Amino acid sequence: MVMSEQSFTKELARLVMESAPDLQGVAGHTARLGIIDYIAACCAARDDEGVVKLWNIVEAEGGAADVPVVGQKKKASFLKAALLNGFIGHALDYDDVHSDVRGHPSTVILPALLSVAAAGRPSGERFLAAYIIGVETMARLGKSIGSNHYMRGWHNTSTLGVIAAVAAAGYLQQLSQEQMEKAIGFAATQSGGMRVQFGTETKPLHAGIAAQAALLSLRLAEQNFGGSRSALDGNIGFLGLYGEPELAGKFLLADWGQSWKIADPGLWFKIYPFCSAAHHAADAVLRLVEKSAFDKNNIERVHIIFPPGGDAALIEKKPATGEQGRFSVEYVVSLALNGYSLTLDNFTNKPLSEDVSSFLPKVHRKYDETIEPAAHAVPKGRFTIVEVITSAGEAYRERIDCPRGAPGNGLSLEDLQYKLLASMDNDREKMHQLVQTIVTLKTEHDMQRLLALL
Amino acid sequence: MVMSEQSFTKELARLVMESAPDLQGVAGHTARLGIIDYIAACCAARDDEGVVKLWNIVEAEGGAADVPVVGQKKKASFLKAALLNGFIGHALDYDDVHSDVRGHPSTVILPALLSVAAAGRPSGERFLAAYIIGVETMARLGKSIGSNHYMRGWHNTSTLGVIAAVAAAGYLQQLSQEQMEKAIGFAATQSGGMRVQFGTETKPLHAGIAAQAALLSLRLAEQNFGGSRSALDGNIGFLGLYGEPELAGKFLLADWGQSWKIADPGLWFKIYPFCSAAHHAADAVLRLVEKSAFDKNNIERVHIIFPPGGDAALIEKKPATGEQGRFSVEYVVSLALNGYSLTLDNFTNKPLSEDVSSFLPKVHRKYDETIEPAAHAVPKGRFTIVEVITSAGEAYRERIDCPRGAPGNGLSLEDLQYKLLASMDNDREKMHQLVQTIVTLKTEHDMQRLLALL
Repeated sequence: MVMSEQSFTKELARLVMESAPDLQGVAGHTARLGIIDYIAACCAARDDEGVVKLWNIVEAEGGAADVPVVGQKKKASFLKAALLNGFIGHALDYDDVHSDVRGHPSTVILPALLSVAAAGRPSGERFLAAYIIGVETMARLGKSIGSNHYMRGWHNTSTLGVIAAVAAAGYLQQLSQEQMEKAIGFAATQSGGMRVQFGTETKPLHAGIAAQAALLSLRLAEQNFGGSRSALDGNIGFLGLYGEPELAGKFLLADWGQSWKIADPGLWFKIYPFCSAAHHAADAVLRLVEKSAFDKNNIERVHIIFPPGGDAALIEKKPATGEQGRFSVEYVVSLALNGYSLTLDNFTNKPLSEDVSSFLPKVHRKYDETIEPAAHAVPKGRFTIVEVITSAGEAYRERIDCPRGAPGNGLSLEDLQYKLLASMDNDREKMHQLVQTIVTLKTEHDMQRLLALL
Repeated sequence: MVMSEQSFTKELARLVMESAPDLQGVAGHTARLGIIDYIAACCAARDDEGVVKLWNIVEAEGGAADVPVVGQKKKASFLKAALLNGFIGHALDYDDVHSDVRGHPSTVILPALLSVAAAGRPSGERFLAAYIIGVETMARLGKSIGSNHYMRGWHNTSTLGVIAAVAAAGYLQQLSQEQMEKAIGFAATQSGGMRVQFGTETKPLHAGIAAQAALLSLRLAEQNFGGSRSALDGNIGFLGLYGEPELAGKFLLADWGQSWKIADPGLWFKIYPFCSAAHHAADAVLRLVEKSAFDKNNIERVHIIFPPGGDAALIEKKPATGEQGRFSVEYVVSLALNGYSLTLDNFTNKPLSEDVSSFLPKVHRKYDETIEPAAHAVPKGRFTIVEVITSAGEAYRERIDCPRGAPGNGLSLEDLQYKLLASMDNDREKMHQLVQTIVTLKTEHDMQRLLALL
């Protein structure tokens, strides 16, 4: 389909506004899990240094304090709360991932929705539907924009998230068709975020900036501000400028609503607080450690074997801090082989311990395009093999195609309750209140109750 | 020079911070003219509908009111004032242009500087120097990013302006070297703005969004927020992702400070309130009208002849309103040939008058790559020929290579005083106070006096 023959913007706006996802099915259930997971990710990051810095900036601006900032016991304005909630949700890279997105949907979409919900009076059901529609938009944009988008240097979480978040927020706010078309354009023209910022506090900030930009787009649409109604379309539109426009005809709109991407292929909830591209290796190395077939002092080399390009997100080979280590498969594997747990306390801004640091040079990445990916691989085509070679020349290998938490090997409600509990200092009563409210979320009253608990 | 061998980010940060432009020369003089011109552009737009809509959004957020919004008799917060001042300065497309930028420098740089000046206590001289440095950065980025950047669909005013504005603001605020390196990266990762928004209120909004993003970048740097110190560099850095990295080695840093781009080739101050790409045609058609060699009722066809691509910014061929007509050479030429003046009142959101509207189909664009551009052409390689063909078959032509206001044919202080006066309802006393303060701007006291007059 030739782009100039179709207005993707107009059709996307129409499909978004006419959507009515069935909340009794898997999509609705996954949306509830997604809210729990997002709150867990926020609470785990509540004392992050970056949060303090961002509050300093926000508070210098002053302004309204209407919208709860998750886990902070403070409120901020409509736009500023989204900046904070987006950053905090992604600060530890502990939030959900979607393989079609090649990035993090909820930490952009949910902050935008929380501000809209706090400013208005939507029902809990409409909030859930808006979230499902936001993930749908982001996943379809991810497939439509093509894999080169990410490879060229874009950070999909923010570049696509800003549009997805305004689709969700516009649905929640019940924009008109024309307003939604323009809102998509206001968001698209603010799309940004570069992968060169990976491994720094700016990576999670992209999520907050995108959420805030989505809400500015919503406000502009509400004001009937002038803007393009076809900003996705044509050679110089969003799809042409940021991606490969020939893909959109296949992926952006076809079969909309027949199933929901939040459930199929589904959100990936993280069991480890680091980049999902290292989760396969983490599962593999933990299996090796569990089997304890070798002495760690006898390890001569470790090979981490990927399909070509499978480690693109893992930009740190010699991290100086645990924070940088979130993007280092070398660090993750070295931690586990040296007896450290793969938990939050080992991914802070503290320097590496000596034993881990000196172990890093033993870990080498390899690429093998001859290995056949598994049919159930997540993401598609991905696998990671961890191979330990001892000084005696023995080799121990584990291969993971679909790590724990990924769709097909997903976390249960109980797993997520545990993640939430651990992230909020084991405050069991508060955790149960939250989970109960989210699992039964339905009315306007429920929605306000959830906001009050954040 | 291979990009990976050099850190453009680090060197740019160093050169910016070490700059000390001579304010007694042409650069200083042009900076003073640029401030007058920017204020004139803002005042001319003070009742624009978009300004009201944007104030609604800003006021809903609440917050501090420290920074004057030009011509509005109201103040807004550090970040929000920049959003407004950037939008207002560019709302009518009446603000300055720079050919190296292929966009509008002052409407992004000056709003950022005004917020910093209001929040701190810099001298007027440092303010002028910061402005010169901002334009320098933006012009050099424009040459470094390559002409394909614009052709692919980017709006240079915002994509490059956000980085230029943080360079200027960081200089004014006296950031450290490390802070400036990171500030450039915070700005680069927020770079955005698509040409699909041309002809709508979102085009000028890009300037405001970029100015605001530059100030968020400044605040992040002041907070020592974590970010890349080399965000311009490498294949996935800003220069590689948004442009053609091989150009930067030649244009970004070489001979920094030997002359200043604000003076050479210089800012282009607009005598007409529409896109500068139509100014050649405007001068040409006004010459034809002045000579009055033909009767307008006898015009059969009008040809507007450009070098290939010379009309890329002129996206409207059949504008419905005067506002869209800012990007329509057909409209500009039809106005003049029908006896209308090329002044602000003909570029509002009102529909076209019947005589102008029915004349549009007579105007045709042509491209002639065989015509030699003049040595003094501005921008380089550009010309426009307006050719009127009468029903008797007579042809009348005028060719313009360097229109009024462009460098080489620039406006004088007196011209700009006239522009300012016309834009502020002929309040001669206020105009003289402003001009006097700007022409003598030197001390901290002068700077505060200027802010108080805005």
